[in-house]
Amino acid sequence: MTTDGTPRWLSDSERASWVRFAAVVELLPGVLDSQLQRDDGLTHFDYFTLAMLSEAPDRTLRMTALAARTNATLPRLSRVVSRLEEQGLVARSPCAEDRRATNATLTAAGWSAVQAAAPGHVATVRESVIDALTPDQVTQLGEISSAILGRLDPSGRLFARES
Amino acid sequence: MTTDGTPRWLSDSERASWVRFAAVVELLPGVLDSQLQRDDGLTHFDYFTLAMLSEAPDRTLRMTALAARTNATLPRLSRVVSRLEEQGLVARSPCAEDRRATNATLTAAGWSAVQAAAPGHVATVRESVIDALTPDQVTQLGEISSAILGRLDPSGRLFARES
Repeated sequence: MTTDGTPRWLSDSERASWVRFAAVVELLPGVLDSQLQRDDGLTHFDYFTLAMLSEAPDRTLRMTALAARTNATLPRLSRVVSRLEEQGLVARSPCAEDRRATNATLTAAGWSAVQAAAPGHVATVRESVIDALTPDQVTQLGEISSAILGRLDPSGRLFARES
Repeated sequence: MTTDGTPRWLSDSERASWVRFAAVVELLPGVLDSQLQRDDGLTHFDYFTLAMLSEAPDRTLRMTALAARTNATLPRLSRVVSRLEEQGLVARSPCAEDRRATNATLTAAGWSAVQAAAPGHVATVRESVIDALTPDQVTQLGEISSAILGRLDPSGRLFARES
């Protein structure tokens, strides 16, 4: 709002950028999910959760840390981890240092699932996003995304801003 | 894949940009939906559908054209329009020029709903995205989004690439 209460409408050029960007945000998740579900029986969120565990020491993270790294609320993450646990890909256990906390650990089957899914997923990310851009644009996209994350996640809770 | 079949993994800088961008794609829809649902009882997709009709001649589009402009498949759009019709915001009728086709028209109540929702929605788009960026970055984001849409929508079916 401006000081007299009139909405600050988007300019023509802002609107043109926004409409295109909103279309990308609308379409990209379906492309990532479709490839992973077709080839590996995983959603993109499942894959990302398994991948974050695969990179952690002892392939283990506290659920609160895993929620931050996957940009998820704890209730949402808990539902997904319950399903991955039923599939034998993740195991939960009480945290040794803090008995009130719960750890999630990637199982051997989970590790195999990530290894099997990674090449196809990376190929999709390249085909849909990275290889469509110049190296300068890849850098710009990282800077733009950091600036937007500063608004979406003002407390800096999420891993994506630190990495 | 490279010619010897090895996946072309992302470089460190590509991966850093991708992780941040994937976080934005994960988080932004929830921010847009939350504001519109809280203040106006609409999803972002509902709002975008009503907004596209509000800008069309006679506030009317064929369902196939509306699907393209909202980046949706026809079955998905049909489900949403059925719900908007029940709420009295949209009306469907056979197309006068092609009886096999169906038109969607924004009703007076639908027009009022868009007018009421627009200021809060635009404020959220500014706060979350546009005002986080420099004017150069807004331009870059439009160009980057066009390049990605070229991969996500290679047939150029979608409105977002023309506008």
